[in-house]
Amino acid sequence: MHDIEEHAGPIEADVVVVGAGFAGITAARRLAEAGRTVALLEARSRLGGRALSRPVGDGQVVELGCEFHGQHDSVSAQVARSVGIGSHKVHDTGLKLIGDADGVRRWRGAIPKASPVALADFGQAALRLERMRREVPQEAPWEAPHARRWDYETMWSWTRRNVRTPGGRALMRLVIEAGMAASPAEVSLLHVLNYSNGTGGFRATTTVTGGTLENRFVGGAQGLALRLAETVADQTYTGAVVRRIVQADGHVRASGPGFEAVGRRVVVAVPVPLAGRIEYDPALPGHRDQLTQRLTLGSAIKFLTLYDEPFWRAEGLTGMAISHTGPVRAVLDGCPPGGTPGVLTAFVTGPAARRMLRLSGADRRAAVLAELVRLFGRRAGEPFDVIEQNWVAEPFTRGCYHAYAPPGLYTEFGPALKRPVGRIHWAGAETVPVEFGSMSGAIHSGRRAAAEVLACDEGAAPADLGLGPAERQGR
Amino acid sequence: MHDIEEHAGPIEADVVVVGAGFAGITAARRLAEAGRTVALLEARSRLGGRALSRPVGDGQVVELGCEFHGQHDSVSAQVARSVGIGSHKVHDTGLKLIGDADGVRRWRGAIPKASPVALADFGQAALRLERMRREVPQEAPWEAPHARRWDYETMWSWTRRNVRTPGGRALMRLVIEAGMAASPAEVSLLHVLNYSNGTGGFRATTTVTGGTLENRFVGGAQGLALRLAETVADQTYTGAVVRRIVQADGHVRASGPGFEAVGRRVVVAVPVPLAGRIEYDPALPGHRDQLTQRLTLGSAIKFLTLYDEPFWRAEGLTGMAISHTGPVRAVLDGCPPGGTPGVLTAFVTGPAARRMLRLSGADRRAAVLAELVRLFGRRAGEPFDVIEQNWVAEPFTRGCYHAYAPPGLYTEFGPALKRPVGRIHWAGAETVPVEFGSMSGAIHSGRRAAAEVLACDEGAAPADLGLGPAERQGR
Repeated sequence: MHDIEEHAGPIEADVVVVGAGFAGITAARRLAEAGRTVALLEARSRLGGRALSRPVGDGQVVELGCEFHGQHDSVSAQVARSVGIGSHKVHDTGLKLIGDADGVRRWRGAIPKASPVALADFGQAALRLERMRREVPQEAPWEAPHARRWDYETMWSWTRRNVRTPGGRALMRLVIEAGMAASPAEVSLLHVLNYSNGTGGFRATTTVTGGTLENRFVGGAQGLALRLAETVADQTYTGAVVRRIVQADGHVRASGPGFEAVGRRVVVAVPVPLAGRIEYDPALPGHRDQLTQRLTLGSAIKFLTLYDEPFWRAEGLTGMAISHTGPVRAVLDGCPPGGTPGVLTAFVTGPAARRMLRLSGADRRAAVLAELVRLFGRRAGEPFDVIEQNWVAEPFTRGCYHAYAPPGLYTEFGPALKRPVGRIHWAGAETVPVEFGSMSGAIHSGRRAAAEVLACDEGAAPADLGLGPAERQGR
Repeated sequence: MHDIEEHAGPIEADVVVVGAGFAGITAARRLAEAGRTVALLEARSRLGGRALSRPVGDGQVVELGCEFHGQHDSVSAQVARSVGIGSHKVHDTGLKLIGDADGVRRWRGAIPKASPVALADFGQAALRLERMRREVPQEAPWEAPHARRWDYETMWSWTRRNVRTPGGRALMRLVIEAGMAASPAEVSLLHVLNYSNGTGGFRATTTVTGGTLENRFVGGAQGLALRLAETVADQTYTGAVVRRIVQADGHVRASGPGFEAVGRRVVVAVPVPLAGRIEYDPALPGHRDQLTQRLTLGSAIKFLTLYDEPFWRAEGLTGMAISHTGPVRAVLDGCPPGGTPGVLTAFVTGPAARRMLRLSGADRRAAVLAELVRLFGRRAGEPFDVIEQNWVAEPFTRGCYHAYAPPGLYTEFGPALKRPVGRIHWAGAETVPVEFGSMSGAIHSGRRAAAEVLACDEGAAPADLGLGPAERQGR
């Protein structure tokens, strides 16, 4: 791995890859395995993108970024096993908590505490969403039979029509805000259906055992990213902030302060809104540029509170809590495999995150600790350490967990998510509808982008890849 | 006016203004009038932003960008009169045309041809929108009594519930697509109401006589922009593409290829999505950055076809046409005051524009000419010149007519539209809810930004301007 500041002269490779998260690392690995030279450029001084794990002693880590994979989420786990990295279960034994304006109650199993009428109301809506999502093709949600009808309204307006009780609506809001880090007012119904397809079902998104929150990687998600990056370490450059990408004379030049990298093709593997902030010459086609104006990153801040031990387990609690009110939508047991230190991971998401963004760091911390005390009792207010990870403020991410599609985006701009622009190919967790926004989605996208590059090199019909006539002549 | 390439050394001024459209020019003028030194930086080799007028001989121009102002739209007209620029009426005598899949029909007055049931259905919905918009405060639409309910759904889902006939729904779709250059699926209902407030009413948006399409400026909208810019010509630099804005030590530095400008404050007066593509140091606060990811430019391409004479007038037509089908949503008589040359201005907007963006220039032109022939007859297919202005492809605009707010933006991010970030102030037609997106809106915003700067200089309470504690100490 090279620090770009210590590297003199231009970098040359067959393929330049921009962004060393799971997508970029996977693309670079695949290309290297196929015998291509690569240059993997990363803006930060570290690799992993939204995967960020912090050591807490004894070889243990806590997760400040992406962390979960479910049984359904097989690709990232398969890849992990192939490089000798295992998984451990998220602690899920005991009772869970739910908070609202009236106080905090305990619940058990898959169904949070609510009135039977509200639960039945939410349940029938969830079943209906399950039936609808099966009609949405994962590779191209915009080709669903009812794509337009479902893409033309927000999740909120669908809920208002299909969930009648205040309690049922509140549960739906909580599931979307905690699961997608956005308000149901902001996301397209079609996007929610497609997203559910990627997680194996609507309810899996917010479920530990049997859902997408079931497992973490031993050593952390970033540990997996770093392991995967080892095979391309000599071709990796950190501190390389790409500001400009120029296509000319059968080559692509990616440059930024103090460096230039030249290749025959480039894979841009940063979040779509940030890809839109790079300067392109020639300028991006209108369809792609306007896509980058519309696909939007959610709003998530993670707070990790560290204790000597997971005191809630002794009290018969899983560590999971959800709350309709206050700054925190969900809490999970965030302990490393051995249970030491005790860690509660609080998710501040969607509208609650936007309110918190206006507060000072001290006020944010105080608000979260007060809510943890309300949920888990006095001991929750006495952590030996508090870690805040504000992904919205991260200059090279600017939002989490992932992007979401507002109404109209899929049906108006969907195909532009992955269509190459000349010698530029797009990767990233949100450029595949398949397992959208997840580690697996990122890996899928890196593989797909690498396959596109190899297919172009090897003379496959470029028309299949959406390249224009000029590009076909230029090959 | 200076070409930045011919300017050596750093530029110093009290205030640096980025972007010389109506907003930036207005801010620079106001500041200069108040005795401040300014530097007005423009990326293009021309001034005017989305105002772009092309000479067609005899001192006449045609309009490739913004062009209309109504009776309601008083600010731009007032400003024009103050610098000796008058207005002329858009030709509106005769019959209008409406096209659909069945053919083309003629209509008269304010009500397009449709079945009486569809017209009554559309009419009651339009009346309801009129009543609703009066409840939306122009300075802060997010404070309307029903702000959340109205911001949480798309215009499409409101229409589906409140307009029952296919004909009524088709008219609503046409009005939104032609008027806002976006699909009703993409815009928040609250945004439509606020936008209507800025135009003096929902139906005014698509009306010539008595509506916002009533008048053009003699010499063109860009002529007005250029006249206004005359007083700051010595402080104006073209070809200055600002890529980076650094706040440090009580100053702001705006820089780009080959130049640097330093001031005590900066006014950024480019479209919000493009403002988000500038690199900021320190990075923008999360709330503002995520706003720039969400506010989105509409999709509009203008085609002007030029003829020796306005042949449609002799046939008893106004030149106005609207169409439910095909690539063109609306056509207007685009002639200069004398009626020579004859000009039809075709608006390719919203979903139709996205489809056209995928075609070659020759195919776009052929599709528009075929539709003009269908609407206006054979002679429409024989222009002596065709001008295409694709605003989506313009590197320093990337969309038109203006931005729109998707669901949830106003209620989640509205106040960030104009809240200063330290020494950075925001201007642009979309940073004021008042007369959102128009020339008048841009002028309003430039005045407001200049007033903010002057208030800070003169010791007004910076807390009122949303500045943080650090900024207050640094003054």
